Amino acid sequence: MPDTAPRPIDLPTVFAHVDAHRQVFLDRLADYLRHPSISAEGVGVGETAAYVGDVMEQIGLATRALPSGGWPVLLGERAGPPGAPTVLLYGHYDVQPPDPLEAWVSPPFAPTVRDGRLYARGAGDNKGQHFAQLLAIESLLAVAGALPCSVKVLLEGEEEIGSPHLAETVREQRDALAADLVITSDGPVHESGRSQLVCGVRGVVSFELRARHAERDLHSGNWGGVAPNPLWTLVHLLSTMKDERGLISVDGFYDNVLAPTPAEDAALAELSVDDAAVRRSVGLARFDEPTERPYADRLAFWPTLTLNGLHGGYGGPGSKTVLPHEAVAKCDVRLVEAQSVAEVQGKIAAHVARHAPEVEIDFGSGMEPSKTPLDSPYVAPLRAAIATAQGAEPLLVPSLGGSLPDYVWTKLLGVPAFGVPYANPDEANHAPNENIEVERFYAGIKTGAAMLAALGAMG
Amino acid sequence: MPDTAPRPIDLPTVFAHVDAHRQVFLDRLADYLRHPSISAEGVGVGETAAYVGDVMEQIGLATRALPSGGWPVLLGERAGPPGAPTVLLYGHYDVQPPDPLEAWVSPPFAPTVRDGRLYARGAGDNKGQHFAQLLAIESLLAVAGALPCSVKVLLEGEEEIGSPHLAETVREQRDALAADLVITSDGPVHESGRSQLVCGVRGVVSFELRARHAERDLHSGNWGGVAPNPLWTLVHLLSTMKDERGLISVDGFYDNVLAPTPAEDAALAELSVDDAAVRRSVGLARFDEPTERPYADRLAFWPTLTLNGLHGGYGGPGSKTVLPHEAVAKCDVRLVEAQSVAEVQGKIAAHVARHAPEVEIDFGSGMEPSKTPLDSPYVAPLRAAIATAQGAEPLLVPSLGGSLPDYVWTKLLGVPAFGVPYANPDEANHAPNENIEVERFYAGIKTGAAMLAALGAMG
Repeated sequence: MPDTAPRPIDLPTVFAHVDAHRQVFLDRLADYLRHPSISAEGVGVGETAAYVGDVMEQIGLATRALPSGGWPVLLGERAGPPGAPTVLLYGHYDVQPPDPLEAWVSPPFAPTVRDGRLYARGAGDNKGQHFAQLLAIESLLAVAGALPCSVKVLLEGEEEIGSPHLAETVREQRDALAADLVITSDGPVHESGRSQLVCGVRGVVSFELRARHAERDLHSGNWGGVAPNPLWTLVHLLSTMKDERGLISVDGFYDNVLAPTPAEDAALAELSVDDAAVRRSVGLARFDEPTERPYADRLAFWPTLTLNGLHGGYGGPGSKTVLPHEAVAKCDVRLVEAQSVAEVQGKIAAHVARHAPEVEIDFGSGMEPSKTPLDSPYVAPLRAAIATAQGAEPLLVPSLGGSLPDYVWTKLLGVPAFGVPYANPDEANHAPNENIEVERFYAGIKTGAAMLAALGAMG
Repeated sequence: MPDTAPRPIDLPTVFAHVDAHRQVFLDRLADYLRHPSISAEGVGVGETAAYVGDVMEQIGLATRALPSGGWPVLLGERAGPPGAPTVLLYGHYDVQPPDPLEAWVSPPFAPTVRDGRLYARGAGDNKGQHFAQLLAIESLLAVAGALPCSVKVLLEGEEEIGSPHLAETVREQRDALAADLVITSDGPVHESGRSQLVCGVRGVVSFELRARHAERDLHSGNWGGVAPNPLWTLVHLLSTMKDERGLISVDGFYDNVLAPTPAEDAALAELSVDDAAVRRSVGLARFDEPTERPYADRLAFWPTLTLNGLHGGYGGPGSKTVLPHEAVAKCDVRLVEAQSVAEVQGKIAAHVARHAPEVEIDFGSGMEPSKTPLDSPYVAPLRAAIATAQGAEPLLVPSLGGSLPDYVWTKLLGVPAFGVPYANPDEANHAPNENIEVERFYAGIKTGAAMLAALGAMG
């Protein structure tokens, strides 16, 4: 039987509820953060799943673990009024390993507040953020007795090891996960400190090129100019794959790349950065070619081919007159929307087979790109909700440069997917002294509530 | 007062003397080999210099240590008849470190005969070979009472660490070292087992290319396509330095390279090898480009640009989405006659400055090439002497592929220089179980005697 919430929700009352519970909400987050859940090491993951599953039940979500091949995938549900949209809120309860321990000011699983930040592994990535969503639900229910829209909360425990079972779970649980849109609160807000509504991510294809010639290293004087050199083989192959102007020269590589829409161009214009400051932040004398292409444009709309590593032969001090017998290059390609993993893998494999048939190619994991159109009907309500909760209009980001498994929502589930990060830019996720600014945690709770209210108003 | 030897020397008598002293000569070599002289570790070098200096005195050479900045450079001299040429016999009494010790069947400094070979560090490289020269002198003196030509024996103790003081010593001791020709017996005979008269070596220029962009490694999703990648910088630079056809494309690189003379071409034709067997010996499916150029031709007459090593970014298992901030390539160039170290360094530096001014280049040690013309008047007598002593005509090698400091004789001293190696091809120099076939040691003594006799007959 669906809740019948009064509409519209009185958000000021909800925000006041949040403000009245600042300390208890922070204490409850700290309690959650005391539970280690290190998926890479299998430490505490099951126990933490049980803990957060109980929390979900207690706040009023009908919660169960979906069948999956790995750690529990928790689904908590609560229906809103008939006709209101259903939003799926995705997050992960597992965390990165805390090494190096000695670099932490306070221990990673002993949450500590210092200077307005809560320090603990998982504070930002991702417990602090999905816990804010849960408290938003709790606060709405406390104030209004019902939710303004239908909500599904999906928490997995394998995100930090690459979500190996997520796509399969989404395919198999398509009915259970049916929703009108997906919102993920993970990662940081914009570098400028402004919140953002993220509509896309690039995909990724990783691969390794291996050249072998002789069965052992040879003397460069006795064999140079006679024996083929695997480093030269890779240099010549790679030089056919990307040119000095920065263009990827694998045949047909750009065929499916879409030009930005006018709306995307307009959104990108808002994202323009101080190029010199960005370069200074990492000590770069210049940007890469093609330098006439704007920074934000390149990260959002252009695929890349990055050499992650290249190794062969002597690497010690001084010189050694050796002709190596093996060399390996590791690469990744960032895909943009309308490219696909299989398509790009096929084009790269064909290119290598044509230019250097002796070179072995081995593809690692791939992830499809994802993009939600900027004219999605959810964009305006979500932006307005974020602005209401945080007092400033969020940036609209057509695509991040990095890769997240958002394609499982847009391509497998077939619904719009948005990122609404709550953490501070210096959350130090994956690093020692991970933290979340407590004000951003509270803002997250309010934002979660405001978004659900805005979605309910669409119903 | 010069010796007045009867001319010509009666070589059969000298050879009979050698045959009559097989055991005692081998025992004396073994005694020499018991003295470690590891220049890289400073072990026993001075003591061994004193030992071999005494041997030189005892066989009748006026011996002294030349001033040098390092371990003793021994010069032993004995004049031949007036008008006879002066030959300088060069060798080195230091040896490579014997590691790994556990790989030796008998200890490296406990000489042991097995299956017709004397095993010990230095057996082939180089004690066994210059000791054969000393015993040749002793045998000539024993039989004839005098030498057929003037002889200078120069033994250094730093060859295995790159002869850091040899060029300076030759420059400063030009008068003391004055000679008509230089003969070095080091390294192995031809792979086929045939002896060889070597007239040249390639030079070498080593250098390192270093590209740096950001001050730390970056995330490939957040920075790929925006931050320059030092591996791509090196790939693009290197691809301008050598093309896929094997041609070095550094501007002006081949300007000074000389075409082989008809005599050199004729000599090379004698050196043709079974290409398939050579490839099989090191597991190569093919030779390098340009495949139409004969094997021996490439090693003798063509410079090379070898990538000795290239390292940057991630090299561990699996993939890592990193954009590295630094990459280093180590290269060597083998120079052929009429190229020079300074010229080639200058051309490479100019090329790098033009194509990739951000890339740092650092030149290591260089060694000039050396070539003695095949029409040198000493070629025919030396070939005939080797044939007389060993019963087969030696191969005439215009140039080895590797690099030895022969330029100190041809370019600094200004005289012809020849290599007449005595060791077996599987001498395992620089490796465990170094050895010399005892028959090749005796053949070396006879060859040394025959060469001095032949030179004396020219006087």
